[in-house]
Amino acid sequence: MKSKHIPRATIQRLAVYLQVLEALHGEGVEVISSEALARACEVNPSQIRKDLAYFGEFGVRGVGYYVPNLIDSIKVSLGTDRIWRVALIGVGNLGRSLLRYQGFPKRGFKVVAAFDCDPFKIGEEIAGLEVMCPRRMKENVKDLSIEIGIITTPTDRAQRAANYLVESNIPSILNFSAARIHVPNHVHVEYVDFFHHLYALTFKLNAGEFQGHDSSPN
Amino acid sequence: MKSKHIPRATIQRLAVYLQVLEALHGEGVEVISSEALARACEVNPSQIRKDLAYFGEFGVRGVGYYVPNLIDSIKVSLGTDRIWRVALIGVGNLGRSLLRYQGFPKRGFKVVAAFDCDPFKIGEEIAGLEVMCPRRMKENVKDLSIEIGIITTPTDRAQRAANYLVESNIPSILNFSAARIHVPNHVHVEYVDFFHHLYALTFKLNAGEFQGHDSSPN
Repeated sequence: MKSKHIPRATIQRLAVYLQVLEALHGEGVEVISSEALARACEVNPSQIRKDLAYFGEFGVRGVGYYVPNLIDSIKVSLGTDRIWRVALIGVGNLGRSLLRYQGFPKRGFKVVAAFDCDPFKIGEEIAGLEVMCPRRMKENVKDLSIEIGIITTPTDRAQRAANYLVESNIPSILNFSAARIHVPNHVHVEYVDFFHHLYALTFKLNAGEFQGHDSSPN
Repeated sequence: MKSKHIPRATIQRLAVYLQVLEALHGEGVEVISSEALARACEVNPSQIRKDLAYFGEFGVRGVGYYVPNLIDSIKVSLGTDRIWRVALIGVGNLGRSLLRYQGFPKRGFKVVAAFDCDPFKIGEEIAGLEVMCPRRMKENVKDLSIEIGIITTPTDRAQRAANYLVESNIPSILNFSAARIHVPNHVHVEYVDFFHHLYALTFKLNAGEFQGHDSSPN
C-alpha cells in the first residue's frame, strides 16, 4: 500500500483531492461521485479513479466515495494523519512569515525550532520560538525528533544550512532558496520555487500571443 | 517552436535548467556537455536532450551546449526574455514579503500594483507601491498593461480577489491561497502550495519507515 512507486504527479494530485474534499466536507458533503469530485478538482474522472485505486480506494458503485473515509485514506497515504516536526533555518521575511503561519497543524506539521546565524536575530522570539544559532543545531534538535528541515536562507547560505541539517540527522529538506543543494543520498530534498509556476503562466501567455489569442473576456 | 504541446513537466525542468545554467555562467562556464548539465540538474542526460530538442536546441556534437546561447533559448521559450507586469492582491505577511522581494526583475517580472481591501492598509506604501482598494482595480490597472495577478489573500477572500482580477481583464493568475478558484476558460490559473512539496517528503518518509529505513548518515 505504501509503495514507493506511486508517481510524483499522483502525490501532487492526491494533495489537491484532499484540499477539495476537506472543503466539501466542511460544507456538509458526505458522499461524492468521481465525476463531481473530478469537476471540483479540475481533472478527468478516469484520472481520479486511477489515482485512488493506487491505494485501494474504489468507491461504491452507483454511490461514489464516502468523503470522510476518503479524506482519512488520503491522509494515511500522504503521511499527514500525524504531526511532523519541522525546523526552519533562515529567519528573513519569508522565514518569519512561515513561522507566523497558523495553517501548519491543520495540515499535519509543527515548526518546533528556528535557526539563523545573524547574531542580531539569535535570541529573538517569533511565534513562541526562540531563534537559535545553527552551530548549536545538532545538540538542540536531538531531543526534538525533527524529521523535516525548511531552508529559507538567501541563496548563498543555502548549502551551509543544508549541511547543518544533514549533520543534525534531519532526514528531509524543503528548500525555498533558489540554490541547488547537495546532500547525501539518504536525505530527501524538495525545491519550492514559485517562479516555476510563473513560467508556466508566461509560457501560456507567450503561446497565446503567438497564435493571435484574444484575451478580452467574452 | 512556441507550441502549446510542450508538456508541463518539461516547462518545469526548463526552469531548473535555466537556474543551473545561470549559476554555471556566473562561475564562468561557457560550454557544457549534456552529461555535465544533467549531473548538475540531477536528471538523466537523455531527458535533457529530449527536453531541449522540443525547441530546436541540439548542441554541438563532441562539444556540448554553448551556455549563453542555451540560456537565451530557454528564456525565449519560457517567455522570460522580457519583463512581465504583475499586480498583487492581499497585503498580509506573504504579500508583504513578495512585494519586498528583490528577485523579480532578474527573473523577468515586475510588481507594479498592490491591492488590499483593508482600509487600514489602503494608502500604505510598501517597496515603493501604494496599496490600493481592489474596487478601484479596473480603472487603476487599465494603463499598467498588467498580465499576471498574484493572489495572496486569506482562503475565504481568494475568489473575490480572482473576480477583481478577471473583471480587470488580467489574463493569468498565480494563486498562493489554499482556495480553489473559479475563472472563465480564457484565464490561466496556477496554484502555489508548498504543502504539496511537504507531502512529497512525508510520503517518502512514510515509505522509508515502512521499509525499516535507517536514517543515520553513513
